Amino acid sequence: MAKKSTRAQSVSTAFRVGPEFDLAGVDPAATPVGPSSKVEAAEDLAAVGEQLDALQETLYAEGLGGGRRSVLLVLQGIDTSGKGGTIRHVAGLVNPQGLRIASFKKPTPAERRHHFLWRIRRQLPEPGYIGVFDRSHYEDVLVPRVDELVPAAELDRRYEAINDFERELAEAGTTVVKCLLHISPQRQRERLIARLENPVKRWKYDPQDLAVRAKFSRYQLAYQEALTRCSTPAAPWHVVPSDRKWYRNWAVARLLLEALRDLGPVYPEPSYDPQVELARLREDDPLR
Amino acid sequence: MAKKSTRAQSVSTAFRVGPEFDLAGVDPAATPVGPSSKVEAAEDLAAVGEQLDALQETLYAEGLGGGRRSVLLVLQGIDTSGKGGTIRHVAGLVNPQGLRIASFKKPTPAERRHHFLWRIRRQLPEPGYIGVFDRSHYEDVLVPRVDELVPAAELDRRYEAINDFERELAEAGTTVVKCLLHISPQRQRERLIARLENPVKRWKYDPQDLAVRAKFSRYQLAYQEALTRCSTPAAPWHVVPSDRKWYRNWAVARLLLEALRDLGPVYPEPSYDPQVELARLREDDPLR
Repeated sequence: MAKKSTRAQSVSTAFRVGPEFDLAGVDPAATPVGPSSKVEAAEDLAAVGEQLDALQETLYAEGLGGGRRSVLLVLQGIDTSGKGGTIRHVAGLVNPQGLRIASFKKPTPAERRHHFLWRIRRQLPEPGYIGVFDRSHYEDVLVPRVDELVPAAELDRRYEAINDFERELAEAGTTVVKCLLHISPQRQRERLIARLENPVKRWKYDPQDLAVRAKFSRYQLAYQEALTRCSTPAAPWHVVPSDRKWYRNWAVARLLLEALRDLGPVYPEPSYDPQVELARLREDDPLR
Repeated sequence: MAKKSTRAQSVSTAFRVGPEFDLAGVDPAATPVGPSSKVEAAEDLAAVGEQLDALQETLYAEGLGGGRRSVLLVLQGIDTSGKGGTIRHVAGLVNPQGLRIASFKKPTPAERRHHFLWRIRRQLPEPGYIGVFDRSHYEDVLVPRVDELVPAAELDRRYEAINDFERELAEAGTTVVKCLLHISPQRQRERLIARLENPVKRWKYDPQDLAVRAKFSRYQLAYQEALTRCSTPAAPWHVVPSDRKWYRNWAVARLLLEALRDLGPVYPEPSYDPQVELARLREDDPLR
């Protein structure tokens, strides 16, 4: 029965980054809660999908009715960690009309002239929407730390700016769900090789990926710092073991579902009397 | 065998608006080509979905590789004709990351100060993307004609402006797929009643819908004119019988598939030598 009670625990709690968090201690191949096989995961994902779809529609309706709330799913992770696959398989579970997907690449010279949060703010989901960030403002603390582009004091200021920004988002009605897709260097190697060997996957590969891969452990340290500095009550971080794609998809879908359930969107009260309108359609309709 | 040969014909040809087109002669409940049952349609839609998904990924890769091409699906139709449902069930077949969905409501005062195509141009899909318009620039010839808001000469200018605009899009590499979702007044009535009777559908209803419904036949005339004036070789119109949701979804998915097939996206040639990169990973990888 021990196993069962573990499985009933909140996925958000299971993956959350707390004060004593140590990234090096997280096994990227682990399946600490939830399904333990691909088949089991697929079954649960289908059920999660139906619930996500219904909650997303309610959130969308709430937004149209004047509600201010939204959800923002932030996906971080090194190359091949599965950010794109997660968007396809998790965001793909809901009506695309309610999604706002944004991808943040290396900042352009124009973007660089602004505060690092400028381009992020422009892509925030409107009320009623689920936003998905493929990389995010965290790039602006990860890359500079790994490549030693800014002094430590500037990094400190950025962590603080991020925490302020995310608290502000939460206060404005946006539930922020932050996920690090955590993979092992061995798995990254396999996936890079797969991209190179398969002609229809080669577009996903960039020779620069190997230069970044060479800094794998430095990125782990940068993540360790960013995650512990910026896992706040307003916007906690989650680390999702992502060596197994089926587990990663299941876990992120569950995290999104829990966020939407906690938010509890409600259909807006109609601004009209449904009975009056039904009578108009039934009795006065010129096109009967 | 006659039936079979009909079914093999191009869906785009079957629904295309030609010079002798008469909207009043199109049965909104017809199933002129393709499946004749919901089950058959679901089976074909699943197959279409797989092909759409693969072609969309190729188009996306082509765009990342410097390609200029894109697809724009324009959905028009009166309230309850199923624009939202089509987006959910057809656009929902592909990776949401490759979609750009835009919804055009009544223009805001700010939008009104610009040329009517201004807000449209801002929402065009970037290279590699599939854009979906839920209503479009056609609202600016339909509503003014029905409500007699502008003189005939101005409508003429707008039809011309639209034709120029769409030719320009085609020349720039955007395949435009325009669909009118055609429903009967009886079906609209049923769907409006369903929205009012079901508490979780009430948010989709607006009392103003009945005022628009009273002008049903005037909208049909406005569509007749817009469709015949603006069905051009560069951007033909298609009329999709939409009283049956399963047929509508199947038809639009097939139209989109044909457009993507005709476009024929190709994976970009890698800018690197895959064998060199594989050797780097296999031999020089510090993380082996």
